[in-house]
Amino acid sequence: MKIGLVGLGKMGANMRERLRRAGIEVVGFDRNPEVTDVDSLADLVEALPQGERVVWVMVPSGPVTDGVITELAGLLAPGDAVIDGGNSYYQDDVPHAELLAAHGIGFLDAGVSGGVWGLENGYGLMVGGDAALVERVMPVFDALRPPGERVDGFVHAGTVGAGHYAKMVHNGIEYGLMQAYAEGYELLAAKDLVTDVHGTMRAWTQGTVVRSWLLELLVRALEEDPGLAAIDDWVEDSGEGRWTVDEAIDLAVPAPVISAALFARFASRQGESPAMKAVAALRQQFGGHAVKPAP
Amino acid sequence: MKIGLVGLGKMGANMRERLRRAGIEVVGFDRNPEVTDVDSLADLVEALPQGERVVWVMVPSGPVTDGVITELAGLLAPGDAVIDGGNSYYQDDVPHAELLAAHGIGFLDAGVSGGVWGLENGYGLMVGGDAALVERVMPVFDALRPPGERVDGFVHAGTVGAGHYAKMVHNGIEYGLMQAYAEGYELLAAKDLVTDVHGTMRAWTQGTVVRSWLLELLVRALEEDPGLAAIDDWVEDSGEGRWTVDEAIDLAVPAPVISAALFARFASRQGESPAMKAVAALRQQFGGHAVKPAP
Amino acid sequence: MKIGLVGLGKMGANMRERLRRAGIEVVGFDRNPEVTDVDSLADLVEALPQGERVVWVMVPSGPVTDGVITELAGLLAPGDAVIDGGNSYYQDDVPHAELLAAHGIGFLDAGVSGGVWGLENGYGLMVGGDAALVERVMPVFDALRPPGERVDGFVHAGTVGAGHYAKMVHNGIEYGLMQAYAEGYELLAAKDLVTDVHGTMRAWTQGTVVRSWLLELLVRALEEDPGLAAIDDWVEDSGEGRWTVDEAIDLAVPAPVISAALFARFASRQGESPAMKAVAALRQQFGGHAVKPAP
Amino acid sequence: MKIGLVGLGKMGANMRERLRRAGIEVVGFDRNPEVTDVDSLADLVEALPQGERVVWVMVPSGPVTDGVITELAGLLAPGDAVIDGGNSYYQDDVPHAELLAAHGIGFLDAGVSGGVWGLENGYGLMVGGDAALVERVMPVFDALRPPGERVDGFVHAGTVGAGHYAKMVHNGIEYGLMQAYAEGYELLAAKDLVTDVHGTMRAWTQGTVVRSWLLELLVRALEEDPGLAAIDDWVEDSGEGRWTVDEAIDLAVPAPVISAALFARFASRQGESPAMKAVAALRQQFGGHAVKPAP
Repeated sequence: MKIGLVGLGKMGANMRERLRRAGIEVVGFDRNPEVTDVDSLADLVEALPQGERVVWVMVPSGPVTDGVITELAGLLAPGDAVIDGGNSYYQDDVPHAELLAAHGIGFLDAGVSGGVWGLENGYGLMVGGDAALVERVMPVFDALRPPGERVDGFVHAGTVGAGHYAKMVHNGIEYGLMQAYAEGYELLAAKDLVTDVHGTMRAWTQGTVVRSWLLELLVRALEEDPGLAAIDDWVEDSGEGRWTVDEAIDLAVPAPVISAALFARFASRQGESPAMKAVAALRQQFGGHAVKPAP
Repeated sequence: MKIGLVGLGKMGANMRERLRRAGIEVVGFDRNPEVTDVDSLADLVEALPQGERVVWVMVPSGPVTDGVITELAGLLAPGDAVIDGGNSYYQDDVPHAELLAAHGIGFLDAGVSGGVWGLENGYGLMVGGDAALVERVMPVFDALRPPGERVDGFVHAGTVGAGHYAKMVHNGIEYGLMQAYAEGYELLAAKDLVTDVHGTMRAWTQGTVVRSWLLELLVRALEEDPGLAAIDDWVEDSGEGRWTVDEAIDLAVPAPVISAALFARFASRQGESPAMKAVAALRQQFGGHAVKPAP
Repeated sequence: MKIGLVGLGKMGANMRERLRRAGIEVVGFDRNPEVTDVDSLADLVEALPQGERVVWVMVPSGPVTDGVITELAGLLAPGDAVIDGGNSYYQDDVPHAELLAAHGIGFLDAGVSGGVWGLENGYGLMVGGDAALVERVMPVFDALRPPGERVDGFVHAGTVGAGHYAKMVHNGIEYGLMQAYAEGYELLAAKDLVTDVHGTMRAWTQGTVVRSWLLELLVRALEEDPGLAAIDDWVEDSGEGRWTVDEAIDLAVPAPVISAALFARFASRQGESPAMKAVAALRQQFGGHAVKPAP
Repeated sequence: MKIGLVGLGKMGANMRERLRRAGIEVVGFDRNPEVTDVDSLADLVEALPQGERVVWVMVPSGPVTDGVITELAGLLAPGDAVIDGGNSYYQDDVPHAELLAAHGIGFLDAGVSGGVWGLENGYGLMVGGDAALVERVMPVFDALRPPGERVDGFVHAGTVGAGHYAKMVHNGIEYGLMQAYAEGYELLAAKDLVTDVHGTMRAWTQGTVVRSWLLELLVRALEEDPGLAAIDDWVEDSGEGRWTVDEAIDLAVPAPVISAALFARFASRQGESPAMKAVAALRQQFGGHAVKPAP
C-alpha cells in the first residue's frame, strides 16, 4: 500500500517512519524542504498510484487544514479519500466531508493520540466515517496502532466527526488526569514528612489504583529534574480542552474536574490576575485589610 | 450600662467608639498603651461595677483568645459574663464556656460583621449562648447593630458556638460572593467591547439582581484606582474560609463555589505553582511540547 | 414621547406599565390578544408618530428576536430606531445592527435587569450603541431605571453589543452569588447547632459584609416557606450563564466560581448522573465496593 | 518468616493468601470465626515465634485500629513490631507509634493500594517509619508488592506517618482520576454522534495518553453492563478523599480537581439538595420563574 501524508511535523514525521517500518509506502509533503519528499501537494498526488488514492492530512487544525483539504478537493479524483488526522474541531468534519464528497472523494476523521512515543509504541486511533472506507484504510490504521488486538488501540467510533469528537473528549480527560496527579504531587512536595516524593510516585506505578502511563511520565520527569526546578509553571492549552468544556455546556453535562483543570492552565499563564486584584481591593475596602502594592 | 472591652485594634476601637456614642460606658484594654484605657486585664475588671460584669473580648482567635479567657476566668466573679466577639473557631466556644462556667461565669459567642464601616453603619451580630444572658446584654447588642428592626442585623442563632458558626458560614459566603464579582470584573476588563467597566459596575448598584454592598465597595475601589493598577493580585485568607470548607467536608455538603474561591486565594499567593510545573513537565514528556524554562 | 414595545410577557408588560406611569406613551404588541394594544407589528409601527420612531423589542432571544427585527427592518423608515432589550447573545447584536442600518434604521442593545421587581424599583440598564441615539432615547431609559443618579442604574457601556455583553456578565455573576448563598444556606441548615436559620440570614441583611438584594429575597423565600419544603431542587439555566463561561474560555479568563454554579444547575436537573454511575462502577471494579443497584 | 495478620476482610484475606503463596507463614485473626486462624489476639501473639514478632494490622481506621493497637501493646514484647496497613489517618500514626514505643515495640505505617486485584497483581506499598525496621520486614513487603523492581511498587516514604500520608494523597488523586474519566464517559454517552462508547474507551487503553489501569476497569465495567444500567449513581466516599482536601486547606495548596471530585460524590448521595432548592427559590423570587413543586 502507498499513501500520501501531508504535514511532517513532530507527529507527521514519526507517523511516516512508523508506517514505513510496517511496509506502507509513504509520500510525504511538508512546506519545510528539509523533511518533505515532494515539492507540492500536486506532486504528492501525482506520486500516488491512480485509483483509490489515500491522503492523510496531519497539519494544524483550522485554516491550515481547511486550506489543504480544499486544495486536495481540486487535485484528487472520484474514489480517492482524505483522512484528517489532525486535532480538528469535530464540527469542521462534516463541512470537509461535504466539500470532498462534491468531488466524489471520501473522507474520514481520525483522532490520533500517543505523542512522541507513538513512533515506538503505536498510536491510539479514533476514527469517524463510512465503514467501507474505514475497512479500505485498515492496513494504515493497523500499522499506526499498537500491536495486539485491534480493538485495543483502534475504534471506528461513528459517522464523520465521531473520531475527532472522541479525541476531543480524550484530551479533556487528559487535562483532568494531569491536574489530579499535579495536585497530588504538590501535596507530597509540600509536606516535609514525605522525604522521597519521586520514590513515592515511582512506587505508585505498579500495583496501585492510580498507575498509568501519565504517572510513569511524571516519574520520568522527576528523575530528570528532581523538584522540577528547571521548568516554569506556565502551561499552554490546546483547543481540545476548551472545546470539551464548551461541549459540556452545550450538552448540559457537569464537568467540574475538566473545567477546573482548564482554568488552572489559564491562571498559570497570567502575569497578574485582574480577578484577584479585585478581591484584594474588596478586602481593603471593607476591612481595611492590608494589601500588597503592585510591584 | 458599663462594660469592659479587651482588644482595641481596628474592630475593637471602632466598637468602643460606637458603644460610647450610644451611651454605653466602655473600659477598654489593649496591650498598646496608646489606645488602652487601663493598664491590665485586672484593672479593667476592677474598673467595672461589681455584680453581673460583662467583658467583651475582641482579640485574635486561637491562643490569644484562649489566654484572655483563661485570665478572665481567674479575675471575674460568679454571675459575670464574657462575650467572645472575635473570629474564634466555633468548636473553641464550648471549651471556653465550660472553663468559665467552672467559675460561675457566663459566656456568649458573638460573630461580628461589618468591617471598618461598622462604626457608622452598625455591625451585623450573630450570637450563641443562653437566652437569659443574651437578654441581659441586649443593650450592648442594640448599640452595636444597625438602627431599625432588631431582627435585621441581630440574631440569637442557637446555643454556645452557634454565633461563631453562623459568622464562619457568613465569611464562607463572602468568599464566594467576592470571587463571583471578581470573575465578572475580569470578564468586563478583558473585553475591548466594554469601554466603561467602572460605569457598568456602578450601574449595577441600582435596580439589578446583583446589587449589594460588596458591589458598591468594588465600585468605590474602581473610582479610587481605575484598573486597580496600584494593588497586587495577592489575597490573604483568614481562618473562616478554611473552616467553612472543612465543615462542608465534615457534613458532606457540596461547596464547589466557596472552595473554588478559597483555592483562588491560595493560588494568588504562590510565587510559582508546583502543580502547574508538574503539568508542564507532563506535556513536555508526552508531546515534546515546548515548556518555559524556569526564570 | 411615544414608543412601540414588542413583547408583553412578564418583563414587557411591567415595563409598559412603568413607562406609562412616567408619562411615556407606549403602543404594545404581543401575539397574546389579551395583552396587546394592536393587532400586528405593522399596526404598531403605524400607531407611532412618523419621524424618529423608536421600537423596543422585548421577546425571547434567538429566532424570535431575529424574526421581529427582520420584520421591523421592512416596516420602519430611515431615522427610526430599534432597541433590543431582550436577553440576546451579544454576538447577535452587530448582525442585527447591520441589517437595520441597511435600511437606515438605528439600533441599540439594552441589557435589562431587575426581574418582576423592576416595575416598582426600576430596572438596571446596560446599553450599547451610538451615543447620539442613546441620548435620543434617554427619556425612555430614565423612565425605566431607578430614580436617583443616572449613573446608578444606567450605563452606556460601549458600542453595539456592549449592553448585552454587560448583561451576560451580570447574569454570570448572579449565578455565582446565588450559589454562594445557597451553599451557605445548606451549611446552616445541615447543622443542628444553628436553631434559627431564617433569623440568621435575616440578621445578615443589615450591617454585614454579605448584605444584598439577593439575600433579602432568600430571607423572603424562607419566610414564605421555612425549610423550602414546597420547592424542588431543580434549577433551570438560561443562556447567559452558559455564554459567560463560553466567553471565559474564549478569553482564557479563569471562572471557577461561575462555572461551578452553572454545573450545579446542570446536575440539579439530572434524574441520574451517568458520570457518577461510572465512578460507582469503578469503585466496584477495583475494590469490590458495594454499589447501589439502580432503582 | 512467620507473621501475624489482624483483620481478614476483603483486603486482609487476600493479603494472607498472597503472603502464603510467597512462602510467608501467616497466623490470621478476625472476629469472624469462619475466616480466622486463631480465637483471639492473645492466641495470635502466642502462635508467633518469640523474638522480633511482627503483627500486621488490617482493620478499619479509627476506633477499631486504636483498639487493636492498644491491645497489642499489652500482648507483645520489646523488640516486636506492629505494622498498620489499614487506611488510618496519618496523624494517628505518631500516637500509635508512641504508645507502642512505651512498651519497646516498633511501629510502621503502610499504605496499601490495589484493591481486590492485589492478590494476583501485588499491592502498591508506601511505608513510613524506622529504616532498620523497614529492612527487617522487607520479606513481607517483597511478597506483597508486584514482582519486578522493588522501587516500582514499594517506597519507604519517610518517618512514621509518611506511608499513610502518601496513601491519603494517592486516594485523593484516585478521586480526581475517576471523576475525569467519568466526565469523559458522560460526554461520550450524551452524544449520538458516538455510536460505540465502549469501543472508544477500549481503544483508549492502548497507545493513548489517557491509558491507565482505571481506564481498563471502566472498560471492563462497560463490557459487563453496557450503559451501566444496573448500577446506581450513588457514590460513597472514604476518609482519605476528605483528609486530602483538609490537608490541602491546611497547607494552602489549591486542589480544585480533587475537591470537585469529592463534592460530586457528596452530591450523588443527596436525595435532594438544600442548596439547589435555595437557588430555585431565589429565581422564583426575583424573576417569577417557574419552579418545580417538591414531589
